[in-house]
Amino acid sequence: MDIATLAGLGIGIVLVFWGMLSSAGGNMQIYINIPSILITGGGTLAATMISFRLNQVMKAMKLFQIAMQEKLPDPSEIIGTLVALAEKARKEGLLALEEEANRFDDPFFKKGIQLVVDGTDPQLLKSILETELLFMEERHKTGRAVFETMASFAPAFGLIGTLIGLVAMLVHLDDPKKVGPGMAVALLTTLYGALIANLFCLPVANKLKLRSAQEILLKEVIIEGILSIQAGDNPRIVEEKLKSFFAPEIREQFERTREGQERVIPLRQTREA
Amino acid sequence: MDIATLAGLGIGIVLVFWGMLSSAGGNMQIYINIPSILITGGGTLAATMISFRLNQVMKAMKLFQIAMQEKLPDPSEIIGTLVALAEKARKEGLLALEEEANRFDDPFFKKGIQLVVDGTDPQLLKSILETELLFMEERHKTGRAVFETMASFAPAFGLIGTLIGLVAMLVHLDDPKKVGPGMAVALLTTLYGALIANLFCLPVANKLKLRSAQEILLKEVIIEGILSIQAGDNPRIVEEKLKSFFAPEIREQFERTREGQERVIPLRQTREA
Amino acid sequence: MDIATLAGLGIGIVLVFWGMLSSAGGNMQIYINIPSILITGGGTLAATMISFRLNQVMKAMKLFQIAMQEKLPDPSEIIGTLVALAEKARKEGLLALEEEANRFDDPFFKKGIQLVVDGTDPQLLKSILETELLFMEERHKTGRAVFETMASFAPAFGLIGTLIGLVAMLVHLDDPKKVGPGMAVALLTTLYGALIANLFCLPVANKLKLRSAQEILLKEVIIEGILSIQAGDNPRIVEEKLKSFFAPEIREQFERTREGQERVIPLRQTREA
Amino acid sequence: MDIATLAGLGIGIVLVFWGMLSSAGGNMQIYINIPSILITGGGTLAATMISFRLNQVMKAMKLFQIAMQEKLPDPSEIIGTLVALAEKARKEGLLALEEEANRFDDPFFKKGIQLVVDGTDPQLLKSILETELLFMEERHKTGRAVFETMASFAPAFGLIGTLIGLVAMLVHLDDPKKVGPGMAVALLTTLYGALIANLFCLPVANKLKLRSAQEILLKEVIIEGILSIQAGDNPRIVEEKLKSFFAPEIREQFERTREGQERVIPLRQTREA
Amino acid sequence: MDIATLAGLGIGIVLVFWGMLSSAGGNMQIYINIPSILITGGGTLAATMISFRLNQVMKAMKLFQIAMQEKLPDPSEIIGTLVALAEKARKEGLLALEEEANRFDDPFFKKGIQLVVDGTDPQLLKSILETELLFMEERHKTGRAVFETMASFAPAFGLIGTLIGLVAMLVHLDDPKKVGPGMAVALLTTLYGALIANLFCLPVANKLKLRSAQEILLKEVIIEGILSIQAGDNPRIVEEKLKSFFAPEIREQFERTREGQERVIPLRQTREA
Repeated sequence: MDIATLAGLGIGIVLVFWGMLSSAGGNMQIYINIPSILITGGGTLAATMISFRLNQVMKAMKLFQIAMQEKLPDPSEIIGTLVALAEKARKEGLLALEEEANRFDDPFFKKGIQLVVDGTDPQLLKSILETELLFMEERHKTGRAVFETMASFAPAFGLIGTLIGLVAMLVHLDDPKKVGPGMAVALLTTLYGALIANLFCLPVANKLKLRSAQEILLKEVIIEGILSIQAGDNPRIVEEKLKSFFAPEIREQFERTREGQERVIPLRQTREA
Repeated sequence: MDIATLAGLGIGIVLVFWGMLSSAGGNMQIYINIPSILITGGGTLAATMISFRLNQVMKAMKLFQIAMQEKLPDPSEIIGTLVALAEKARKEGLLALEEEANRFDDPFFKKGIQLVVDGTDPQLLKSILETELLFMEERHKTGRAVFETMASFAPAFGLIGTLIGLVAMLVHLDDPKKVGPGMAVALLTTLYGALIANLFCLPVANKLKLRSAQEILLKEVIIEGILSIQAGDNPRIVEEKLKSFFAPEIREQFERTREGQERVIPLRQTREA
Repeated sequence: MDIATLAGLGIGIVLVFWGMLSSAGGNMQIYINIPSILITGGGTLAATMISFRLNQVMKAMKLFQIAMQEKLPDPSEIIGTLVALAEKARKEGLLALEEEANRFDDPFFKKGIQLVVDGTDPQLLKSILETELLFMEERHKTGRAVFETMASFAPAFGLIGTLIGLVAMLVHLDDPKKVGPGMAVALLTTLYGALIANLFCLPVANKLKLRSAQEILLKEVIIEGILSIQAGDNPRIVEEKLKSFFAPEIREQFERTREGQERVIPLRQTREA
Repeated sequence: MDIATLAGLGIGIVLVFWGMLSSAGGNMQIYINIPSILITGGGTLAATMISFRLNQVMKAMKLFQIAMQEKLPDPSEIIGTLVALAEKARKEGLLALEEEANRFDDPFFKKGIQLVVDGTDPQLLKSILETELLFMEERHKTGRAVFETMASFAPAFGLIGTLIGLVAMLVHLDDPKKVGPGMAVALLTTLYGALIANLFCLPVANKLKLRSAQEILLKEVIIEGILSIQAGDNPRIVEEKLKSFFAPEIREQFERTREGQERVIPLRQTREA
Repeated sequence: MDIATLAGLGIGIVLVFWGMLSSAGGNMQIYINIPSILITGGGTLAATMISFRLNQVMKAMKLFQIAMQEKLPDPSEIIGTLVALAEKARKEGLLALEEEANRFDDPFFKKGIQLVVDGTDPQLLKSILETELLFMEERHKTGRAVFETMASFAPAFGLIGTLIGLVAMLVHLDDPKKVGPGMAVALLTTLYGALIANLFCLPVANKLKLRSAQEILLKEVIIEGILSIQAGDNPRIVEEKLKSFFAPEIREQFERTREGQERVIPLRQTREA
């Protein structure tokens, strides 16, 4: 799992809990109210379910899990692998890539190399891989939209819960002892709504957006590299083309790695390790 | 009706009612106030009626009903039908499609096939079907706009109702017994406004948007397929072209279906079933 | 006047008044406060006057009046007129349109036909009519912007009025009898601001936007038709071209009308009726 | 100064003052609090200074002054001048424009004519004038951004001031006599923030936007006219081209002016008057 | 450090502190509450950490420091340097630029000149420098996004802290002595959130945006100048081309500087001073 995400979630939850404990003098239970949790969380989920189709809501949850756990491959590793494949293709021909293709974990990379080996027309190859990328981007966008929609409904259902509580409390205003606790419970849904939106949904939507952009960039590098290999480009030119996709730090990192070890098919080897 | 929409609406309403019951200690009637319902709901409708023309507001309601009840055809079924038609056209000529055309329920599909049989010029055929699609998209957008407009006016009229109630209550502040119930009634319109917007209008507008996008995609597939049939493309190529419109899951689903049964005109057969 | 606009405004005002009456127990005058009306309404107008030029604010009011009273011509009528003119031009030549031109009320239509009769170059004709359309669109946009600007300033001046009232009330908090009525008066400006924005400015801006889009579509149809007539297109083709601008209902309506009566210059005849 | 701006500002200020007087029973000083003015106004200025560079903030103030005082030239006057120059250029040659160029106040107009007299290449002439226009537009946009930024910070610092006041008041809640005046003072910053944003910054930003659009249109007309003169176009065509930039009213106004007096170089004459 | 930023931050902080002191009667400590600072500041940082990757958050802080301390080079100085280099290249050939290249501090300028000396293909040279510029822009955008994200989370966590405090206070409403101080502490987080957003994050994001635009403009001038030098343009034309990027004031400033001293490589000399 991404260290910043984990740390951020942990720090946020710890701070909020500690803030509650220090405010309530240790009496944590004043912040827990099952009906309030059900109205805010359940209402948010209900509105999100009306907004999307059931399988989209479920896919978003899965997408979140994957995004948090799986690490994206290292850009310098991908460049290295593509340069090594370009060298192999120049020396032994495109058909020699067949045995390499089977070693990749990434289905996108594998499919691309297989299509090259099959002798697919470059135009069709490009179109197939780009269509695949387009649908990946759309799926990411929908997954993100589920979290963004939840983030917009959570404060709304927090307010709805608070209004329900306030109305009940106000009707019995003649008993002053009930006013305080009544309002306290009423405000809990607003608090829950703000926490759901700001400590979970919005930051996760932000992170998914960032990650999606990175993953798309990596796939674009793979498409560019595979097309360059198919065209029989010089490995040096393949390397120059692919490096231009990244920031200076990553370029330097790739050059340092390259000097340290002369890997042939680094991506696969790393994966096997 | 779409299961997620139904479930979402149901869960949302049940949670809100249950929240009211548990807050009010079973005394549900403190949440029901006819003047408050009339000001919030009626005011929202009034502002929406000024914003649109009467027939647009009514069409939106009908569009909502249709969208909730009717199921969109299965993408893999549409591909299958178009591939089967392409095969028939290759074997028996375009005129042989005439008898098939009459079997379709979908007027858009029917009209397209009829135009092919009539020997319409491809350019004109494309233009006619795309114009039809454009206006369908515009109608969907207006229908959605009605719900979005209601979602923005509902909280505003909720606030207006609350202010009306507060002013009346504040004038008689000297009687402390009336303060609580007065404020409770005043807050009801804000509650109604939030519920109208967040439990009904906004989620429905979201769902209509999603559904419109799906329907447009299906119509684009039909246009592409009909043009491909008219051009006399090989059924295999027709299939490849159409599959590129969909996500991998749907492609696999189509291939599974294809292997299981060798249907000639699947869409019609399914419809008759 | 547009029936939905009238009905919407009427229903909205009646509901708000009735809500006030039922809240105040018939004592309507607690909702009327001249200084509050002046601060909210006057402040909104003042800020709008700084934002625009005086003649733009005045034109917007006039535009509103026109838009509410005048009915847009019927699309099927415009198609009919243009088709009839195309037939006449085919039979008797473009010069024969001169006598027809003088019969139109609509200056845009009249100018277009006059330019055709004058033998204006098609490119220049198109450019002149489109420039005219562009400036009509700009004028509509500015007129709408006046209402949108008022809608954004009204709640702000409502808040300013409430703050002015609250400060005055709070300074004399030692007299508890004045608290309630003081706050009631203070809240009136917020109520007025919300009503100005949501019952008048925003719905009117919405309606003007919708109407502008319809009027522009009609003018585009007229430009297309006049250019087609000038080019000597077959009346049947003129009809097909123009019908593609409208939704299926309007196309059908045109065909029904056509069958019922074989009008030569329907637009003029209708206008004279 | 623009009459609507002056009137709007005057009416707004008078209404707010009168509202304060009538609320406070003539005791105006309850609305004046120096620390509150300093926190709201000073905080807004401070945040704006961090956002921009010092000279940009100062230029914005100057731009505001100029925009409020200087009147934009009359479109029909500019058309008249350009048509007169076109006539002169046709009769006496482009060099004859030299003596006219020195008579203009507007440096943009002067520069354009001087470049024509110097025999500048049309492509370069167009590029120089359009670059100048582009930078004028950018300067206007930055000037406007200063007011828009102030409009967004003013309510925020109003809230900050109110929170500072509320905290101080709440700590001494045991003395009920201080509660009212304390809250009154606390709310003053919110009032000041709302007034700064809605009675000054936002309307001024709106007016600057409108004025910038008008000034750019006039400069575009001058560029079009100068290029047309350089190309040796017939004065009649120059007139037709330039009139198409304006709304019908301005075209008619130009034609009325033209009939009334046959001016040769009207712009200069008006300026000397 | 930029004088306006420093002054703005200083004035803002002094005004807020002074406002607190004058409100609290010198008892500053009522505005300081460690748990409140931790919940607002820590929660904001936590949500920002989930939104971005750790190294992006850290880079943003560094970017802020650099942006505040380093002064951007003077546009007229950059034009002067490029014109001087163009003169040298015309007289002594492109290779003569090699010794100059080593004197520059700016790695972007240095790299560009080195690539010219190396005889890089103009197309490739342009592409390399523009890619570098693109990634600089992207890095700036991400750095700014960190501050913008913090600005949107800070008020949200301010509200969360206030709700936590309010709930704790309301539960013990029966002790009226605790109400005031309890609410005072609860409101502190809202105050902190508003200050973090409006006195720090938003103005800094605004300033970073402005500075990024300036830096990109300077780099574009350098690219244009280097390409012009490589193409062997006349120094006079190089100057004209580059001056068109700037506003009139900067053009005049460059001309004044030019007359005062006839510098050969001004940028380097200034840097050594």
